[in-house]
Amino acid sequence: MSLLLAMTGWHVEDWRARFQALLPDIPVVILGEPFDRRAVHYVASWKHPEGSLAGLPNLAAIFSLGAGVDFLFADQRLPEAPIARVVDPDLTTRMSEYIVLHCLMILRQQRRYDRQQPLKSWEDDRHQPAARSVRVGIMGLGELGLDAARKLQVMGFDVAGWSRSLKSVEGLTTFAGEDGMAAFLARTDILVSLLPLTPETKGTINAALLAGLARDGRLGGPFLINAGRGGLQVEADILAALEAGTLKGATLDVFETEPLPADSPLWSHPAVTVTPHNAAMSEPEAVANLIAAQIRRLEAGQPLEHVVDPKRGY
Amino acid sequence: MSLLLAMTGWHVEDWRARFQALLPDIPVVILGEPFDRRAVHYVASWKHPEGSLAGLPNLAAIFSLGAGVDFLFADQRLPEAPIARVVDPDLTTRMSEYIVLHCLMILRQQRRYDRQQPLKSWEDDRHQPAARSVRVGIMGLGELGLDAARKLQVMGFDVAGWSRSLKSVEGLTTFAGEDGMAAFLARTDILVSLLPLTPETKGTINAALLAGLARDGRLGGPFLINAGRGGLQVEADILAALEAGTLKGATLDVFETEPLPADSPLWSHPAVTVTPHNAAMSEPEAVANLIAAQIRRLEAGQPLEHVVDPKRGY
Ligand SMILES: NC(=O)c1ccc[n+]([C@@H]2O[C@H](COP(=O)([O-])OP(=O)(O)OC[C@H]3O[C@@H](n4cnc5c(N)ncnc54)[C@H](OP(=O)(O)O)[C@@H]3O)[C@@H](O)[C@H]2O)c1
Ligand SMILES: NC(=O)c1ccc[n+]([C@@H]2O[C@H](COP(=O)([O-])OP(=O)(O)OC[C@H]3O[C@@H](n4cnc5c(N)ncnc54)[C@H](OP(=O)(O)O)[C@@H]3O)[C@@H](O)[C@H]2O)c1
Repeated sequence: MSLLLAMTGWHVEDWRARFQALLPDIPVVILGEPFDRRAVHYVASWKHPEGSLAGLPNLAAIFSLGAGVDFLFADQRLPEAPIARVVDPDLTTRMSEYIVLHCLMILRQQRRYDRQQPLKSWEDDRHQPAARSVRVGIMGLGELGLDAARKLQVMGFDVAGWSRSLKSVEGLTTFAGEDGMAAFLARTDILVSLLPLTPETKGTINAALLAGLARDGRLGGPFLINAGRGGLQVEADILAALEAGTLKGATLDVFETEPLPADSPLWSHPAVTVTPHNAAMSEPEAVANLIAAQIRRLEAGQPLEHVVDPKRGY
Repeated sequence: MSLLLAMTGWHVEDWRARFQALLPDIPVVILGEPFDRRAVHYVASWKHPEGSLAGLPNLAAIFSLGAGVDFLFADQRLPEAPIARVVDPDLTTRMSEYIVLHCLMILRQQRRYDRQQPLKSWEDDRHQPAARSVRVGIMGLGELGLDAARKLQVMGFDVAGWSRSLKSVEGLTTFAGEDGMAAFLARTDILVSLLPLTPETKGTINAALLAGLARDGRLGGPFLINAGRGGLQVEADILAALEAGTLKGATLDVFETEPLPADSPLWSHPAVTVTPHNAAMSEPEAVANLIAAQIRRLEAGQPLEHVVDPKRGY
């Protein structure tokens, strides 16, 4: 019985050492090296090459090494086995750091003061709105969205959320599904996307959505923050909305193509803040611990946690 | 009986209209116009010219139009009367917006990503520390410091505070007075100053203090945020510490001279963020309401609230 590591872009030997230390009884093998496919009971993957997991007849579970699983469902030849993702409180805290930071940068017009400083300009905005008069709308009220919502409320923002199934959360205005979308957007000055990428959510952040955002807010136009996945957004539509003034600014951590290509106009657009898909990274030790704990649960005959639903895609 | 408005740099006629609407029975007079000095029972001041309030024999109270009162105690010829300041929950919320914003900008290395974006650089920090491993130290645990402390804790930071008298606040590591200063500084990666300016606090943020900050933190050197008063800081010492590497960065909302003079090297220092003394401004309507309510309290024979102590200077 073995654990197969299948990853692209990461230091696989570091991961082998981590897992081997945590699971001394279970051989850890690596995609690319020779290994016995019949012995593989567990796979831990981050963006494995498509099809590379086919033909593992004794697979008991597939673990995503991250919070998202979209790269797993994108593989048409993924073997049938329960899929679990990482739910890491530390990652959640980091995502909320990012969301609160960028909502506050927008609220407090940090870009304006950044532009003024080299000009030695001592100008301020006598009409600086308070957080309570700015409406944040969070798409996706899962592990990440709910924590961000709570912390934005602590900071004073007027927060609402949108999800697939209607949520009831104290103090939070909630909307759900396609029917709830228009009303949700119409009361949103800062749209925060923390959706997973699924066939249903792909391309959600498009011209129609951006046109539906609030036009009457205290920020002089709506803002977008996407820290979910790049596939959620149509970058041409975001750029067009910025040009048209339908959108006043965008903070993007994720992109249709990553790394963001050098010829993307997003890099140099004055109203766009780019971060290199690092809104929330788990510490490798924490991820290895969480997955090792899942494997020990399975070995002890206990059920897997944080299993995703292939029908929903998240 | 009248209310005298004494202010520099503000639209006094707007303030007269606000107060007159709230206190229709009390004549509102303005410094510079002719008025009966014996009739003045109340003064509302923001940086009145020194000595201009002398000779008001029937004064019952002096109101600062802001949270700070240092400009009042700076006037050697201030008449003897109880002094009250504005304590405005909305202002407190705004100050915490500013403090949390700038702590998160430092934590999440926003300046690094700001520099990278024009270079189209998709580089991130694989060792990005989590908020819990960064120690914020707040000097001043009054209305503003305590609210900022609580919100920084919600965001995950490891927070301590320092004040004149020792405070006991759940979850907060506290220090007090000169005796507690060294230990407080030694565990501080981000120093947040929310002290009032008094004879005791003047020049507190000097070379000795900066040299005492933590050198072993996860941020690679300590940072300073001063949103109290410019008189708390010795700007030459801050610049020297930045040059020497004793200080890694500074975010300053307040300055020895305001507006910050064009020849100050702070404007163009790459590790300094300058904001134009606007960390927390009250809405004029809120200030007028709070002071009018205080005047109605006095007229009804009730005690004044938020009285400051001339001996302490705050
Ligand atoms: N940028 C980064 O560094 C980074 C880091 C970590 C994660 N992420 C991304 O963040 C995503 C969210 O993570 P999470 O842990 O919060 O996921 P989660 O707990 O699974 O929550 C997903 C949320 O999205 C909602 N949702 C899904 N499909 C929907 C649809 N078609 N319409 C409306 N709402 C829909 C769900 O609604 P229900 O509540 O009704 O199920 C749920 O509220 C991840 O999938 C990943 O892509 C990004
Ligand atoms: N930048 C801006 O836009 C802006 C806006 C508003 C206010 N401010 C500034 O913020 C300051 C603080 O406001 P606040 O409402 O929080 O004041 P506060 O409620 O009076 O609190 C002052 C705090 O400072 C402490 N303190 C005073 N002198 C000290 C000393 N010598 N040593 C150690 N601690 C000392 C006090 O200690 P104890 O608790 O022991 O009394 C108290 O904790 C104001 O005075 C004003 O200058 C700036």
